[in-house]
Amino acid sequence: MPVNTIRWVNGKVRIIDQTRLPHKLIYRDIKDVQSMREAIKKLRVRGAPAIGVAGAFGVLLGIKNERPKNYREFKKKIDSAIKSLASSRPTAVNLFWALERMRRCAEGNAKRPLTQAKKLLLEEAFSIMKEDRDICRRMASFGAKLIKSGDRILTHCNAGGLATVDYGTALGALFKAKKEGKRIKVFVDETRPLLQGARLTTWELKREGIDVTLICDNMAASLMEKGLIDKVFVGADRIARNGDVANKIGTYNLAVLARYHKIPFYVVAPESTFDFRLSSGKKIPIEQRGEDEVREILGKKIAPKNIKVYNPAFDITPGRLVTAIVTEKGIFRRRRKGTFSDFHICTR
Amino acid sequence: MPVNTIRWVNGKVRIIDQTRLPHKLIYRDIKDVQSMREAIKKLRVRGAPAIGVAGAFGVLLGIKNERPKNYREFKKKIDSAIKSLASSRPTAVNLFWALERMRRCAEGNAKRPLTQAKKLLLEEAFSIMKEDRDICRRMASFGAKLIKSGDRILTHCNAGGLATVDYGTALGALFKAKKEGKRIKVFVDETRPLLQGARLTTWELKREGIDVTLICDNMAASLMEKGLIDKVFVGADRIARNGDVANKIGTYNLAVLARYHKIPFYVVAPESTFDFRLSSGKKIPIEQRGEDEVREILGKKIAPKNIKVYNPAFDITPGRLVTAIVTEKGIFRRRRKGTFSDFHICTR
Repeated sequence: MPVNTIRWVNGKVRIIDQTRLPHKLIYRDIKDVQSMREAIKKLRVRGAPAIGVAGAFGVLLGIKNERPKNYREFKKKIDSAIKSLASSRPTAVNLFWALERMRRCAEGNAKRPLTQAKKLLLEEAFSIMKEDRDICRRMASFGAKLIKSGDRILTHCNAGGLATVDYGTALGALFKAKKEGKRIKVFVDETRPLLQGARLTTWELKREGIDVTLICDNMAASLMEKGLIDKVFVGADRIARNGDVANKIGTYNLAVLARYHKIPFYVVAPESTFDFRLSSGKKIPIEQRGEDEVREILGKKIAPKNIKVYNPAFDITPGRLVTAIVTEKGIFRRRRKGTFSDFHICTR
Repeated sequence: MPVNTIRWVNGKVRIIDQTRLPHKLIYRDIKDVQSMREAIKKLRVRGAPAIGVAGAFGVLLGIKNERPKNYREFKKKIDSAIKSLASSRPTAVNLFWALERMRRCAEGNAKRPLTQAKKLLLEEAFSIMKEDRDICRRMASFGAKLIKSGDRILTHCNAGGLATVDYGTALGALFKAKKEGKRIKVFVDETRPLLQGARLTTWELKREGIDVTLICDNMAASLMEKGLIDKVFVGADRIARNGDVANKIGTYNLAVLARYHKIPFYVVAPESTFDFRLSSGKKIPIEQRGEDEVREILGKKIAPKNIKVYNPAFDITPGRLVTAIVTEKGIFRRRRKGTFSDFHICTR
């Protein structure tokens, strides 16, 4: 049964508070833009597609109780909500993509009565949500084609239902493979510093009855060397035109290891994750997060006070290390040589 | 100022309880074999050379209050202490090497009065300790030759004073480089699951005034890709005849990343770490540790209850990924081709 990561309930956005998992499944009603910004910043709601949808509904929170006199005032409210939400996290592009759709929807309906424009904005947010549901299922079908019965799959961070509206990107492919009757065994990187693998991915996979084993991030190479990993599946936060993939810190690490051990490395992400304006991953802004995320684990201090810390939330995996990218349009495999613009679709 | 990891004080072994660092520097007096076995098992004392020395003194704890009637009884006590200590941890060979020295010392003095034999055993343990001090300083001098001013060095786990009697293997080289006036910057892998990097190595480096930055294990590749790492320095728990190195889990991971990014990968370990009986690393027994070490961090649960876990304490880095091994005899570089038996000494 899919999770309910994000819903619109009585004019509020009901999210699963992911900081409390796996110990407690708590829903939280987000009532205004500021709280949504905070929820995204603190990773209560997280995952590139999920924060896109959360952002879209966040815009609604900014106007639902407003009675603007005219379109200009209305648009000002919307722009301010968008500006605030856009400043929550810099790397995942789906957020900006969803906010841009909301802005365009407002502008495209500038001539209509404001109550109707408001209604159309709500419909747009619902469309984004519904599309995410459909897209995840389409990606899952394509992704599952890459999985054989007996496969032992490694995944990093959380690219599951909790990272989308309800089904997942990389994990969606595993759910679908399971549904098709394929036996799979999944290894999950705990994914320091915020432990999304240990806390969220193990929880989701166990919930779906999938054979899951938790490892520390530094154990992946040991498994690969023993021949215990057949494939790596991860999600993405932003993909540049040349196929470079920004994803949770540690993804690039895995991609290098996978290449060294000749293990296919698959990225599953909706088209909204592509940023075609950027020629390479070097141009993707990487969020640097607070030092205490590394110095502490769930509030426990693990290092000397004030020790210096390096804490990028994401890294860039060059397109050349990616075997294929699965989107809702199909499986894009990289040609043997050339840049990622040479990726070609091989399954539709 | 070097740490005092292990001392012999009034017929007891005084160790730093490393499970309490970095928050508390607590010394613990170990009074009998069983407590020493437990201290090694629980990593209160840890690091291949350190547990060798701890094991040697542990044998003394097994006989110091005994009044055996004859050599046979005496030897039985010693063998029983050795057996118990040898079953504490399987991978680091220095423990077996030190216990073997104690056994031989007992056997070599079988004809002497027991009080004298006892005294000679204590002297043997002191020799092992003193040799470790000297060897560490010799390794440090050789290791420092590999370090240039301005180097940014990555290290994993703890190969410092806390892993030896008082000075360190890999960290010894850094201490020495600092002493020689070289400016260095050190990045430290936190080293899950037991966080020896975050807890112990940062503490030691800070104590010596070295510029230190803590990272999560999955961030190393990101630093390497940015050109921020010039060299990797690690210790070792056992080295096979062909140059394969068993060291803390995650070391092999780093070695693959270093090779991919063309970064030299150095191992610093005393000759007692070599196990010439083993033709390759495949034959080194790898300790599997408890599942809760991964499911919990310092007592905090980070994953769903009963989730399956893979938790090897060590991995094997093939000799071909090692640029050089530094021992007390010099720097052994690998020839371009061939196995590690082709390593040749290049600095004496």
